[in-house]
Amino acid sequence: MHSTSRKKVLIVHAHPERTSVTRHLVEISIEVLKAQGHEVMQSDLYTMGWKAVFDGQDFPKRANQDRLSFIEESGYAFSNGCQTPDVEEEQRKILAADAVILLFPLWWFSMPAIMKGWVDRVWAFGLAYGYQGAGNAYRYGEGGFTGKRALLAVSVGGPADDYSPRGINGPLEQLLFPITHGTLFFPGMQVLPTFAVYGTVRIDENRMPEVAAAWRGRVERLFADAPIAFRPQNGGDYPDRHVLADHVAPTQTGLRAHIADASRPAAAEECSAPLPTAIQ
Amino acid sequence: MHSTSRKKVLIVHAHPERTSVTRHLVEISIEVLKAQGHEVMQSDLYTMGWKAVFDGQDFPKRANQDRLSFIEESGYAFSNGCQTPDVEEEQRKILAADAVILLFPLWWFSMPAIMKGWVDRVWAFGLAYGYQGAGNAYRYGEGGFTGKRALLAVSVGGPADDYSPRGINGPLEQLLFPITHGTLFFPGMQVLPTFAVYGTVRIDENRMPEVAAAWRGRVERLFADAPIAFRPQNGGDYPDRHVLADHVAPTQTGLRAHIADASRPAAAEECSAPLPTAIQ
Repeated sequence: MHSTSRKKVLIVHAHPERTSVTRHLVEISIEVLKAQGHEVMQSDLYTMGWKAVFDGQDFPKRANQDRLSFIEESGYAFSNGCQTPDVEEEQRKILAADAVILLFPLWWFSMPAIMKGWVDRVWAFGLAYGYQGAGNAYRYGEGGFTGKRALLAVSVGGPADDYSPRGINGPLEQLLFPITHGTLFFPGMQVLPTFAVYGTVRIDENRMPEVAAAWRGRVERLFADAPIAFRPQNGGDYPDRHVLADHVAPTQTGLRAHIADASRPAAAEECSAPLPTAIQ
Repeated sequence: MHSTSRKKVLIVHAHPERTSVTRHLVEISIEVLKAQGHEVMQSDLYTMGWKAVFDGQDFPKRANQDRLSFIEESGYAFSNGCQTPDVEEEQRKILAADAVILLFPLWWFSMPAIMKGWVDRVWAFGLAYGYQGAGNAYRYGEGGFTGKRALLAVSVGGPADDYSPRGINGPLEQLLFPITHGTLFFPGMQVLPTFAVYGTVRIDENRMPEVAAAWRGRVERLFADAPIAFRPQNGGDYPDRHVLADHVAPTQTGLRAHIADASRPAAAEECSAPLPTAIQ
């Protein structure tokens, strides 16, 4: 199963237990991608002992000694080559990658702190926001990570029903919108629908082959599947770069208004419904 | 300005810079609450050097040496009194408090990692979820933190327009739903509408008095303002504890379906519109 072109894929994951569902999915990812002839890079955050807290130590050379502004110092450190080596290394991997897969257990409806801290520290001003020193001119579909694909794989303790369109937790893709839209699409990545394994509190050996097969398929189609149709900032839907034009999704407000595909207006929710890739 | 009854309030905050907007709001909170005669507790996460990463070190005595399951170990540690002292101390503060105020800069549309790690580690199984060993019997309006109030105050770099009902980032209250609904309401807290200060990248001395006055009012009304009308799991709207009954908000799906107040169906969005408390 070799694809026509060799790609580079960065796998970022956040679970310390080798027998966890998250780590199972990591192993499958590596196996499938290598079988396809792709090059795999990894950021195993727990094993790396990744520093989660974004603080003054991230700026060994300060632009301003008197007052710590994260935006100012991040921009200064990035543009003057004085970031910490661990942050530089992660940026180097992302910039080399054609796709990034993030795998984590869903804790309180978001990433574990260690992965949030990976984003907080690596998503530098001048690279992931404030691109080219042009404020918000380039964001949502354009920016430092343009042209790369991104895919989340989450291990969820609760049942799929709780994350269904009218489920008590809210639909999974809406809960993850700050990550898919706000963190990955923001600096230019094309984000695929999330792969979720539900009910991992009670997952048993019998269910893993089904989960594994579904995930294998998603990894195989990493460069083929259609991304979520998030609206690009500079594609015409946001004439002032801030608010949707009146004629765009005129009856909608909220998160789903930022997904363009009219044929699937509830796309942000379908992903937690029984799709082949969302294991029940 | 003294209230009739003395309350205890825990202030949790996450910004290391003493002159930041976040820390300004912290100082105002303390001043107002003390003037009202309330008792104030603090968790200044950066100054405390809070350990953000939830890992094996959180479980000095393991229920299972062979495999690290966070849920299993969290439940074992909580119910057997073998949590780490820092986690126990935070739980003690929350349990003593009548209200919790969380103040943080919005980083990638969520909490800084250090505060996410406070939640990950302190929200133990048996306390904040899996309450009374009864699975999901008690959650969303009931649980270990029942009867307490919660309030977020966020410092936001971008302009309010970007977070308006049709703004490009998505409405602020929807982006924060995993925190307000999924983290605070889940174990039983009543959550007030978020207080947001927008445009903090360019905030100047002239605007701070206006921000301060608005925040002062919100803190003064901490025990008076109406909470967001999130639907309680066991109030009748979720007969099977998982999915909304057909007759409840029958045309709605997604996050807003979980807010009951029919007179303000877009309540999750109004908070980022020009309310008196949402500084533009």
